Amino acid sequence: MSAILKSRIRNPKFLEKLVKAEDLIPLFKSGDHIGMSGFTGVGGPKAVPVALQNYVEQNNLQGKLRFNLYVGASAPDAIEGKWAELDMILRRSPHQVGKRISSAINDGRMLFFDKHLSMWPQDLTYGYYTLKEDKPTLDTVLVEASAITEDGGIVPGASVGATPELIQMADKIIIEVNTKLPNFEGLHDINVPEAPPHRKPFMVEAVSDKIGLPYIPVDFDKVVGVVESEYMEMTGPNSPEDDMSKAIANHLVEFLEHEVKMGRIPESLHPLQSGIGNIANAVVGGLSDANFKNLTVWTEVLQDSFLDFFDSGNLDFATATSIRLSPDGFDRFFKNWDTYSKKLVLRSQQISNSPEIIRRLGVIAMNTPVEVDIYAHANSTNVMGSRMLHGLGGSADFLRNAKLSVMHTPSARPTKVDPVGLSCVVPFATHIDQTEHDLDVIVTEQGLADLRGLAPRERARVIIDKCTHPVYKPILTEYLDRAESEALRKGSGHEPHILKDAFKLHINFQEKGTMRIDSW
Amino acid sequence: MSAILKSRIRNPKFLEKLVKAEDLIPLFKSGDHIGMSGFTGVGGPKAVPVALQNYVEQNNLQGKLRFNLYVGASAPDAIEGKWAELDMILRRSPHQVGKRISSAINDGRMLFFDKHLSMWPQDLTYGYYTLKEDKPTLDTVLVEASAITEDGGIVPGASVGATPELIQMADKIIIEVNTKLPNFEGLHDINVPEAPPHRKPFMVEAVSDKIGLPYIPVDFDKVVGVVESEYMEMTGPNSPEDDMSKAIANHLVEFLEHEVKMGRIPESLHPLQSGIGNIANAVVGGLSDANFKNLTVWTEVLQDSFLDFFDSGNLDFATATSIRLSPDGFDRFFKNWDTYSKKLVLRSQQISNSPEIIRRLGVIAMNTPVEVDIYAHANSTNVMGSRMLHGLGGSADFLRNAKLSVMHTPSARPTKVDPVGLSCVVPFATHIDQTEHDLDVIVTEQGLADLRGLAPRERARVIIDKCTHPVYKPILTEYLDRAESEALRKGSGHEPHILKDAFKLHINFQEKGTMRIDSW
Repeated sequence: MSAILKSRIRNPKFLEKLVKAEDLIPLFKSGDHIGMSGFTGVGGPKAVPVALQNYVEQNNLQGKLRFNLYVGASAPDAIEGKWAELDMILRRSPHQVGKRISSAINDGRMLFFDKHLSMWPQDLTYGYYTLKEDKPTLDTVLVEASAITEDGGIVPGASVGATPELIQMADKIIIEVNTKLPNFEGLHDINVPEAPPHRKPFMVEAVSDKIGLPYIPVDFDKVVGVVESEYMEMTGPNSPEDDMSKAIANHLVEFLEHEVKMGRIPESLHPLQSGIGNIANAVVGGLSDANFKNLTVWTEVLQDSFLDFFDSGNLDFATATSIRLSPDGFDRFFKNWDTYSKKLVLRSQQISNSPEIIRRLGVIAMNTPVEVDIYAHANSTNVMGSRMLHGLGGSADFLRNAKLSVMHTPSARPTKVDPVGLSCVVPFATHIDQTEHDLDVIVTEQGLADLRGLAPRERARVIIDKCTHPVYKPILTEYLDRAESEALRKGSGHEPHILKDAFKLHINFQEKGTMRIDSW
Repeated sequence: MSAILKSRIRNPKFLEKLVKAEDLIPLFKSGDHIGMSGFTGVGGPKAVPVALQNYVEQNNLQGKLRFNLYVGASAPDAIEGKWAELDMILRRSPHQVGKRISSAINDGRMLFFDKHLSMWPQDLTYGYYTLKEDKPTLDTVLVEASAITEDGGIVPGASVGATPELIQMADKIIIEVNTKLPNFEGLHDINVPEAPPHRKPFMVEAVSDKIGLPYIPVDFDKVVGVVESEYMEMTGPNSPEDDMSKAIANHLVEFLEHEVKMGRIPESLHPLQSGIGNIANAVVGGLSDANFKNLTVWTEVLQDSFLDFFDSGNLDFATATSIRLSPDGFDRFFKNWDTYSKKLVLRSQQISNSPEIIRRLGVIAMNTPVEVDIYAHANSTNVMGSRMLHGLGGSADFLRNAKLSVMHTPSARPTKVDPVGLSCVVPFATHIDQTEHDLDVIVTEQGLADLRGLAPRERARVIIDKCTHPVYKPILTEYLDRAESEALRKGSGHEPHILKDAFKLHINFQEKGTMRIDSW
């Protein structure tokens, strides 16, 4: 046993359960309900899942060892992508990233459902995802740990996610103590809420408030194996900013400056939530460079751009459920551990995404959709209504409850035949995850539409005017003009649509590769 | 001054401001932002609004005295319906009931926007609805009071709604002390939450917990007039139960009994939320007659059926923001005041509809939609996507956060040419207010679909199988079969749709008066 492993497992009882990953394979039966720690591809088990996939591959067991797989959000593509490729997943929820797993979902080889990330762990503990089984629990839960405390508690790694609830629902628990990564101890605040009707208020009144323990309590008798894991996190580099994302960020910073000037938000703004991707990175960059001081962040996941944000001196404190850095980002994070770790807390996703806390703090929420429609409904998940990308994530937890709900998107995206073949503003979103009642602001590189207090017909005019790509402005205007005139004449003009034309841009894309129609 | 008025106004300073309703008319200017107390047609001002409408009618001022009108939910049709008829409303939010006002909205004579009822008072106080004005406040707020306390606080009547926030935002306040109705004093629990970032947790851990004052504090200097009002509430009788609604209630009771048996909810269930209408009445009736004991209610509005529910002995406590009874119901309520008032609290809509509390308590939410689609998105507001009914109300506050989210609807409704011309289950909802991520159960008189943990394609099969009218079952099955086969072939089969056919049933109805298509 390595010295580092011994130093990480501070409760000697757990040392007695040390095994090799391969030894655990017989525990897994096809049809099992399996939980894994992890969120946005970090903080999850690696050694046992890799051993399992190797076992399936080497023994030609594709399609013969299949699991119902529950991970708070996504696992790394090197794991669940590989599992999907090997047909090892029967059912998956609530979020995933990677071409291999999304292909399996969209080809019908795997069942998937997405759910608000704040609600999912709770519904899991209610037994809602195991209704057809004899028992509500999960057969096996695999957890990555930075350390095991003297009390026998699990110190998570780079994410908390749904791990507390997964452990609570486990029949058998496997702990992977990761000795390759530095110890994340001290970064976490873990609470496992009581179920209703005995639930208490979440007593968080500021982003830095802690309400739990620094580790996850675990029932020792359920632990069936402790494995040393020597895997690094499996993340890649971040998406770079570009002119489009910088233009969006500039519009947003200008808008927030105006809100401060009008006295609707303080100079330190409100706690910020930001998604993942190049626009989110540009927005965080824009906020770092702007004149806002003493900012705070209440979000789901932190990317590399937040390290710059901390370094700018403008960010006082940040909290999330996952810190998903690039390999260089993790290096930088651990080299400056003393600085960053004092300004950071990782919580469970039930807390980081809690409607209760998001609304109380008045969070400013910013997310990227697949498309928005002229009345401000947004599609966050299904391309052309049918093809799943990643899942809902926490977008609706934040956008529904924020003080300012912002959707940022390019006005158009390229297709194979047209550099602006996809308008991101459409007459009718082909799938709706965020309703017109949830969005305050839509911003593209073209401009920003402030929708607060507007009726649908006003909203549509502002969105088309400020946000659409010039190619689509006349197309959408003509739709709205015609819909409005027809619907008002019929006495049904609150939110005018022409149902036979509502998806015409999408159908044109499906047939001709571009939404640029010749005529209505 | 009548003795009863003197007894109701216990702070003598307020007596000095006594005026007649007609005297206040010069205070109102066209374009003003006007707030009124009231929710679901009760607890609002009556004398001054009626004086204003008479003034407009008698002086032919239709279209010349127009207001931006804010009421927590609906005002009585006799008031806002009349105002709409007289073209006195420029803009209205967030909810309304009555043919005259909805016609004005759908004909384009009035602008309207709906918003989650929990969020609306908060956004109002942020100044989001008065962005274009020089000041964020409302010009005049009219409030009905049962009494004015020694401290100068306003004791509301049959509803609290958004009155605390409206008063907080008022430049001028008019109080109507209603001496025709009995005094509702003792029934209210009023708190005005601090704005973020200083907001505190709402410390409600049980339906009977009180966290505020028995009255609404008011700035005396803003009070420009106190008027005696001698109007009864302007409610009508309730919708009766019928075989369809009883069948729905039976399915639901059976489902809840099963949940208790499986240990997923206690025998006292969880706090219940129920909407308005005949299905809601039947459900409450069904619950009264079932074997559940010590039930509680956490809801938005109480109807007459709740009096029977109390009388059944099975309901321990109920809380809402409005008690909207029929004239006979109010009689019965006041005759048994000592019994009912001990088991009842009225709170502001920001509390009654609070996501924080609804989720903490694990509410069981039950609402009626316009239509649901095969993947469990629901339209709560716009018929055929364009024509506004009443507005979103609190449906999404409850359905998003409940432990069990239930939509109940007839499987089909009659049209002029077909007794089942409208299927309430459609391929794609023409407007989406509740997403697939928000509903656990859909129930019609045909049966109950338990959607928890199901992937979209599974969900669609269960909904079609259990909930649709027999006439539409083959039609919807064929749509799903075709969509599934086509989408899976193209690798986009997570939630299969054929966009060109998605609204075909609706278009058929628009053209031929029935959704019963001959073929796809």
